[in-house]
Amino acid sequence: LLSLVGEVLIDPGDIVFVAAPTYFVFLGTLNGLGARVISIPSDERGMQTELLENELQKIEAAGELSKVKLIYLVSYYENPTGISLSAERRQQAVEIAQRWSKSRRIFILEDAAYRELRYDGPELPSVWSFDPDRQTVILANTFSKSFSPGFRVGWGIVPTELVGPLNDRKGNEDFGSSNFCQHLLATMFGEGLYQDHVQLLRDTYCSKRDAMLAAAENWFSEISGVNWVHPHGGLYVWMSLPETLETGFDSPLFRRAAEVDKVMYVPGEVCYAGDPAGRPKNQMRLSFGTQDAEGIELGMQRLSQAVRAVLD
Amino acid sequence: LLSLVGEVLIDPGDIVFVAAPTYFVFLGTLNGLGARVISIPSDERGMQTELLENELQKIEAAGELSKVKLIYLVSYYENPTGISLSAERRQQAVEIAQRWSKSRRIFILEDAAYRELRYDGPELPSVWSFDPDRQTVILANTFSKSFSPGFRVGWGIVPTELVGPLNDRKGNEDFGSSNFCQHLLATMFGEGLYQDHVQLLRDTYCSKRDAMLAAAENWFSEISGVNWVHPHGGLYVWMSLPETLETGFDSPLFRRAAEVDKVMYVPGEVCYAGDPAGRPKNQMRLSFGTQDAEGIELGMQRLSQAVRAVLD
Repeated sequence: LLSLVGEVLIDPGDIVFVAAPTYFVFLGTLNGLGARVISIPSDERGMQTELLENELQKIEAAGELSKVKLIYLVSYYENPTGISLSAERRQQAVEIAQRWSKSRRIFILEDAAYRELRYDGPELPSVWSFDPDRQTVILANTFSKSFSPGFRVGWGIVPTELVGPLNDRKGNEDFGSSNFCQHLLATMFGEGLYQDHVQLLRDTYCSKRDAMLAAAENWFSEISGVNWVHPHGGLYVWMSLPETLETGFDSPLFRRAAEVDKVMYVPGEVCYAGDPAGRPKNQMRLSFGTQDAEGIELGMQRLSQAVRAVLD
Repeated sequence: LLSLVGEVLIDPGDIVFVAAPTYFVFLGTLNGLGARVISIPSDERGMQTELLENELQKIEAAGELSKVKLIYLVSYYENPTGISLSAERRQQAVEIAQRWSKSRRIFILEDAAYRELRYDGPELPSVWSFDPDRQTVILANTFSKSFSPGFRVGWGIVPTELVGPLNDRKGNEDFGSSNFCQHLLATMFGEGLYQDHVQLLRDTYCSKRDAMLAAAENWFSEISGVNWVHPHGGLYVWMSLPETLETGFDSPLFRRAAEVDKVMYVPGEVCYAGDPAGRPKNQMRLSFGTQDAEGIELGMQRLSQAVRAVLD
């Protein structure tokens, strides 16, 4: 649905706001569409939506407001940071999108993929819930996270004006998602098994998150300049290293980790849009989705070895 | 894969050759991409590939040869006609594509979706087999027909130069097909169950085809001006009615069939590209895939009632 929305709304040169950092796969999609992506910095409450106002003023002054099509918000336990957008900022984002929909509508694309993977912390209302007219927010969700990774059946709630174009595009692209997977999900729902399965995943992932946070404490707390986010849900721990320590695919750390210590991570810099030179280079997305507690502990130990080796 | 190839190769105004009639879903995809679609008439041996030569000469004379990107061939039991391209024409299509790849390469997109659903008749070599250099033919296949309808896992063999762009596009569109379905297929292959399942489908569909052909004989042979193709595989019987009898969604026949007789078909005219006014209007695609023999007999009886009612 993220891709379909991009295909339907974005012409080359159109403007899309994203958080920095954000979901790197959608950055690839936007790049493929030729979008002009403007990054809004995040803090521990998600995208700093108050900064949108200033950006929009600059764009309007340049006579380009009609090119602004979309604000992309990963609202729950963002991939890669694990951070959720605060309720105040959800409301503010909708207000700003609506106030600046002057020459044409600015949509918000709410990516709520990780919503059901909540382990603790507050239950936040969706961005979509702050849009009672249902004309601004496109709510995108998936069963790939809550039911089975890579399952590739999702759902969305979209403003009426987008239903026809999105269906047309979907038909031309794949003529419909896998019937088999849809039937399987329908059976899970029909027999009342779905919520139990989600709860099982929640319990399992929560233990894994705890294992990763304990291992981070164990192996990284004594390395100066290392810190990480404690996520309330999702599948990732976002770790920052000392500023001079680069994590990219070509960095000494990545190579050492992959080749000697046999441990992988996603370099933080791929989660930023814009000029590579201007991106933070010292961050890592660590995933606790696949490994069991023992594998997580071992992976974190190995990663700390790689970090110490490169720091030495 | 059909959609991905279109996305990667086609810019608006680019030229694609298709058979008339052909698979209507891909016509929709090409239309969405802004392609200029040129129809080459089919006969009982498929697309009349010898006519490509003359079309290409005209296009070259108009200075537009560099816009020709693709020849689309549904090689086995084409949807909608059930006709297979003859071996001679397979070879001829490859020769023509290669000979006319002057300023840029003209690819052939071979859609072999129904290949495994062969009930009788000759086993034809693929179009791809006539391209030993592997630079001209894109072979697209799917398990949606041979394993489970709408399963949405496919495979292809593509020229080396297209591998990177197709993978990039696939990544931006859906980041990979359903893992779940891929694992299920891998298990079927690993345990040696796949071929048995295909044989079961072949036997089942073959009986259904026979039921539909028998019912056609039974209910339509006495209606003057009606004829149909006897397919050696696939899922469809292509029926032509008297020339003045229109079958389109807005036609009296379609409405009567759907509303009174409770039977559906795909109007033949949606399987043609180009100006709607110039398309044959008196054809129908009949599917024997879903109904059992009894349902097929009943459906054909009902359809013949509708035809007789409208002819009266």
